[in-house]
Amino acid sequence: MAGADFSDFGINIAIVGLGLIGGSYAMALRELNPKSIIGIDKDPGVIGEALSSGVIDSGSTSGSEALKDANLVIMALYPKESVEFLKKNVRFLKKGAVVTDSCGVKKDVIEKVCDFLPEHVDFIGGHPMAGKEKKGLRASDKNLFKGTNYILTPIARNRKENVKLVENMAVAIGCKNVVSITPEEHDRVISLTSQLPHVIALALVNSCLSETNIGLFAGGSFSDATRVAEINSTLWSQLLLMNSENLLEVIEKFEDSISRIKSALRDRDKEALDDIFISASTNKRKMV
Amino acid sequence: MAGADFSDFGINIAIVGLGLIGGSYAMALRELNPKSIIGIDKDPGVIGEALSSGVIDSGSTSGSEALKDANLVIMALYPKESVEFLKKNVRFLKKGAVVTDSCGVKKDVIEKVCDFLPEHVDFIGGHPMAGKEKKGLRASDKNLFKGTNYILTPIARNRKENVKLVENMAVAIGCKNVVSITPEEHDRVISLTSQLPHVIALALVNSCLSETNIGLFAGGSFSDATRVAEINSTLWSQLLLMNSENLLEVIEKFEDSISRIKSALRDRDKEALDDIFISASTNKRKMV
Repeated sequence: MAGADFSDFGINIAIVGLGLIGGSYAMALRELNPKSIIGIDKDPGVIGEALSSGVIDSGSTSGSEALKDANLVIMALYPKESVEFLKKNVRFLKKGAVVTDSCGVKKDVIEKVCDFLPEHVDFIGGHPMAGKEKKGLRASDKNLFKGTNYILTPIARNRKENVKLVENMAVAIGCKNVVSITPEEHDRVISLTSQLPHVIALALVNSCLSETNIGLFAGGSFSDATRVAEINSTLWSQLLLMNSENLLEVIEKFEDSISRIKSALRDRDKEALDDIFISASTNKRKMV
Repeated sequence: MAGADFSDFGINIAIVGLGLIGGSYAMALRELNPKSIIGIDKDPGVIGEALSSGVIDSGSTSGSEALKDANLVIMALYPKESVEFLKKNVRFLKKGAVVTDSCGVKKDVIEKVCDFLPEHVDFIGGHPMAGKEKKGLRASDKNLFKGTNYILTPIARNRKENVKLVENMAVAIGCKNVVSITPEEHDRVISLTSQLPHVIALALVNSCLSETNIGLFAGGSFSDATRVAEINSTLWSQLLLMNSENLLEVIEKFEDSISRIKSALRDRDKEALDDIFISASTNKRKMV
């Protein structure tokens, strides 16, 4: 459904949180001609900016009124804040509304939301694998989702047509792959493909604390491996702690791989090193 | 000395090894109008290609004759092969020739070369921090060195004017920073800024061996952290083994950093996590 025209459905979309992600949703969704885009953000300055640049049609610093006509609500807040906002505003949600989110952990968020969500509202977990190091509305980009992966984590209580709606939206804003998996599987795989690389970047930078002028001696591999080390600590402490069990497991697997390399180096075992290189090359090629 | 005109010096430059690095040297040096560029590569097909594309003025599959007029010899072979080539061809080197190399380990290479090098030839260790995942002459690029770091590792026996010549060359082919440090310091710092990120990429890919469809769930952080995992095993087993002592030390520092993160996760210690994030952010900003 590339080129989906959301105006056909008379759809009103509310976006909660107009930071980098929320702002980018708004800009990308604008291209699909929805009936209206409603922005909700606690910062009135951000609402003003989004209104005057035409990113949203109407805006509010609270949920209540702004939510009542929204057919689709996209949560673009941090995990804890997403749950809290929904809990506080659940009574304002339109009957039959579809709510989705963009949190990087799913099981915990979905369980908490389902605890208080009424039957007539459908919450469909989503995780767009898109981002930038910059944050805030001004860093938003209508092309942020182009060519990226979008993970949906539907559960038994979700209605098929609602899952389809969110899926269509992801395709229409340019995502390359839209995949549905269970929340549990999401959290397991994401601990490996997103959280572990962040942990590695943090650890690598922190193991250089005593070095000076490191920029003079760094090549591309170092820059790449440390790109995400400047982390949004409010968001990432939530993500890592909410998924700590999975994360600890993949960190330990990674440590085992490091140990194998250390042994090969200590034993000056060229053959063992070659095996490690070959296995990495083979696996890397399969990943593309 | 940006814009150095090597024709002023009547300089003949021999480049040994016309792979990605050697080919890129030839193309970048061409812009400096040296008297001539001589290419040496054991593969006659590569020599033919380099001649017909004008990358070199003359070529040979062996050192002997081709080296006799070279004022500057640039070794663009792997470490072991660089040492072996020089040992075999040392008697053909012009009196007063300056020889430099591009190896990623310095102490071992310089010690070995100095063992057999006559007084009248000056060997100045060099390490251009430039590269690509592709290899071979066809991947060469005259802009490969633009904006990169170039490390020189002069020793007591080097003549100042010769060090200056190589330094000028590095600036003239576009390097952003040209820094002189000791071979020992080079090997120590490079184990951290280049070898450790490669070890990490290998270990990360190898800890995903049992995963399927990982590409569907990977964001930018994973792609970045694994970019260099498809490694040239001949080159890298030399680099890692020749510098294993330094490398093992930085791996262990890195493991300590990982352990700190693990403890914070296990203890669900948000404050400890925040400290780790803050220290990484602060340090990352200093590195740029």
